[in-house]
Amino acid sequence: MTTVTHEDVLVAARRITGHVLRTPVIEVAPGLWLKLELLQHSGSFKVRGAFNRILSAAGLPGSGVIAASGGNHGLAVAYAARALGVRAEIFVPEVTSPVKVAGLRALEAHITQTGAIYSDAAEAAAKRAAETGALPVHAYDQAEVVAGQGSTGLELMEQTGGVDTVLVAVGGGGFAAGVTLGTSAPGGAGGPKIVAVEPERIPTLRAALDAGEPVRVQVGGVGADALGASMIGGLAFEILSGPRVESVLVADEAIVSARRALWERHRLAAEPAGAAAYAALLSGVYRPAPGERVAVVVCGSNTDPATLTTT
Amino acid sequence: MTTVTHEDVLVAARRITGHVLRTPVIEVAPGLWLKLELLQHSGSFKVRGAFNRILSAAGLPGSGVIAASGGNHGLAVAYAARALGVRAEIFVPEVTSPVKVAGLRALEAHITQTGAIYSDAAEAAAKRAAETGALPVHAYDQAEVVAGQGSTGLELMEQTGGVDTVLVAVGGGGFAAGVTLGTSAPGGAGGPKIVAVEPERIPTLRAALDAGEPVRVQVGGVGADALGASMIGGLAFEILSGPRVESVLVADEAIVSARRALWERHRLAAEPAGAAAYAALLSGVYRPAPGERVAVVVCGSNTDPATLTTT
Repeated sequence: MTTVTHEDVLVAARRITGHVLRTPVIEVAPGLWLKLELLQHSGSFKVRGAFNRILSAAGLPGSGVIAASGGNHGLAVAYAARALGVRAEIFVPEVTSPVKVAGLRALEAHITQTGAIYSDAAEAAAKRAAETGALPVHAYDQAEVVAGQGSTGLELMEQTGGVDTVLVAVGGGGFAAGVTLGTSAPGGAGGPKIVAVEPERIPTLRAALDAGEPVRVQVGGVGADALGASMIGGLAFEILSGPRVESVLVADEAIVSARRALWERHRLAAEPAGAAAYAALLSGVYRPAPGERVAVVVCGSNTDPATLTTT
Repeated sequence: MTTVTHEDVLVAARRITGHVLRTPVIEVAPGLWLKLELLQHSGSFKVRGAFNRILSAAGLPGSGVIAASGGNHGLAVAYAARALGVRAEIFVPEVTSPVKVAGLRALEAHITQTGAIYSDAAEAAAKRAAETGALPVHAYDQAEVVAGQGSTGLELMEQTGGVDTVLVAVGGGGFAAGVTLGTSAPGGAGGPKIVAVEPERIPTLRAALDAGEPVRVQVGGVGADALGASMIGGLAFEILSGPRVESVLVADEAIVSARRALWERHRLAAEPAGAAAYAALLSGVYRPAPGERVAVVVCGSNTDPATLTTT
């Protein structure tokens, strides 16, 4: 297995500088920061890994890049490919929200919508990649992708001056794994506690921790369009099964409430999955100790804004 | 006339620290920053002036504070009053959007909706204040209010490392005046160019500059609920008629386009007035020179998010 290190995150961060946004943090209460990764280009953190993967490739085939995605990763790959003048082919499952499909079309990607859930689309994309020779950009289980996502963690530590705890959502786990690496000290030692937050209805990390290895789970609930991987990535599992990581689960109702609170209190238009980490805090599933310095990553905004006040 | 100075802004900024958010900036292109004042508590910059005015008062009457507002100022005064445990009475004109009235109710303010436009509500509030002895918090034409708003400018200069130009919206002018003071050098000398952006259909500053003094204008168009003052404030006129300020006007269609672009490109949910300054840049009404470092203040988000993609 390829391992990924803190140093890989440092290299990735340098490589993608200028291509991605250094997203801001806001200190919403003393010692509580929100990292506004939902304002990132393409509407989620995914563009960090996409740029890092594409820019790491030594020469791209004429068939360009190919990806499968519940939506946000596809948008990110399409965004990065367009920015770099590369052809992009994106496979998305049928559960993908119309907002995200429309976004893909606007980015001039070649789209194939197939299969009920993410893993079906991923299989179709892998088959196609074998035929065309296009560079696969995985949604989470690739070293360059994990390293790219990790740049969020580097920024977060710089911007806050360091925190004790980071709450971050887990789907396939590439983002949480990257943030775990990015927030560690140089050499990979130490770093803040990582609270890995999953919807109760898509517990890929929890199931893997219980089983001792990645296992397939049922996918459902409000986070399914963005946290819809049915199994934690191998790289992510290696990193997220480490001692700094605490796994917590949040109910769908808590995610919906958190999303609404992000709009009402902070005017942030998060998608449900983007509000999952905040839900762990707001619902009390994770309770910081007095004086604990906490950062919450709000990581996606590819949503129909009309639903911010109606659901 | 009371004058307001850069030093008043420094004092105000210190006074309101911890009560208001230090809103972030994002560098969306090299040398182009957006100051995300729309993420401020209560959904606009107005809370800065409200806190500064209330916290400056030497003892408050039992009747608390009173304000008239097209909405955002009322929300801000209600927010600040609740945070400080003070009674708030808010007069709003009938043009005020339902979203803002609902927001006022949620903040437990005592609301009177009266008059067609802002100035009618302001007259009613002044009359009521004379009866009750409540502390009036003006929407723009008070030294403490202008100084409070100016803290936005101080932050902006610190966060960007300094810019050549700031684009800021003008209604009653208190915000633009404050930003002009806040971005100047200590002592009030120099500072970036201030591009004072008004909707073509509410040109309070332009009309005053043409007449040589504040004059009443017709109020209409998409910005009316938040930039609906019918005359520039006296304090604001004094400051905004200075040599650093350039007055520009934007069409309603440009505001609508800019608001949509803020959502589509940056996932920012601005209200029309909040997008007016960005509209000047996007429509080409203001064209920066090559290498010019520009900040745009996006200043309000009290909007129905369902309208972000439909108008």
